[in-house]
Amino acid sequence: MTEILARTGDKWSVEVLVQLGHGPRRFNELRRDVNGISQRIMTLTLRNLERDGIVARTVFPTVPPRVEYRLTDLGRSLLSAIAPLVEWIVGNRSEIISARRRFDGQDPAHCTGSCRC
Amino acid sequence: MTEILARTGDKWSVEVLVQLGHGPRRFNELRRDVNGISQRIMTLTLRNLERDGIVARTVFPTVPPRVEYRLTDLGRSLLSAIAPLVEWIVGNRSEIISARRRFDGQDPAHCTGSCRC
Repeated sequence: MTEILARTGDKWSVEVLVQLGHGPRRFNELRRDVNGISQRIMTLTLRNLERDGIVARTVFPTVPPRVEYRLTDLGRSLLSAIAPLVEWIVGNRSEIISARRRFDGQDPAHCTGSCRC
Repeated sequence: MTEILARTGDKWSVEVLVQLGHGPRRFNELRRDVNGISQRIMTLTLRNLERDGIVARTVFPTVPPRVEYRLTDLGRSLLSAIAPLVEWIVGNRSEIISARRRFDGQDPAHCTGSCRC
């Protein structure tokens, strides 16, 4: 479970998943759609997703060859399963940031010494 | 988004979330329920979840003080949002492992040299 969670916990993997949810894309199209990703990280991200059977890579025998990436059936089902979490994060981002501010500003004197805080 | 995804992509955080979904727990009860977690990692995991406003920590003024952890409303909504993903991982684990085996056994000769594989 750890490795699979790590993949779905990786921002770039999730952004590539979401973009490929709109339809097949070529490498450079994806790089344009996923803002701020480097060529190296895009290559690694796509390779890991392909290895997991989430993304399929098709090489068309044109000159030069056209390489296209698309979600597999497994990838589409993962996108559906992750959608509620992505929505939750977008919807609760500011609440989490506020909670962190409150926590970081807390008086450490609440600690009695016998707890593990 | 990255940091929040990292939290939900962390196996221990997800396991603690799931356990606290059954009701409030004391530190040692949680450690018993979350198999294989060390005291240090449990402390860090709970502190991060508390910092994000997902877990609440209550100290009861007994001797010795009783410290209890429970999900906040935000934590309960996160648990609901992550449930489809956890189910997906459990249901598709073997398919992913098979995909990895196929990928790792692939003949690298499929590479034409012009792609980024």
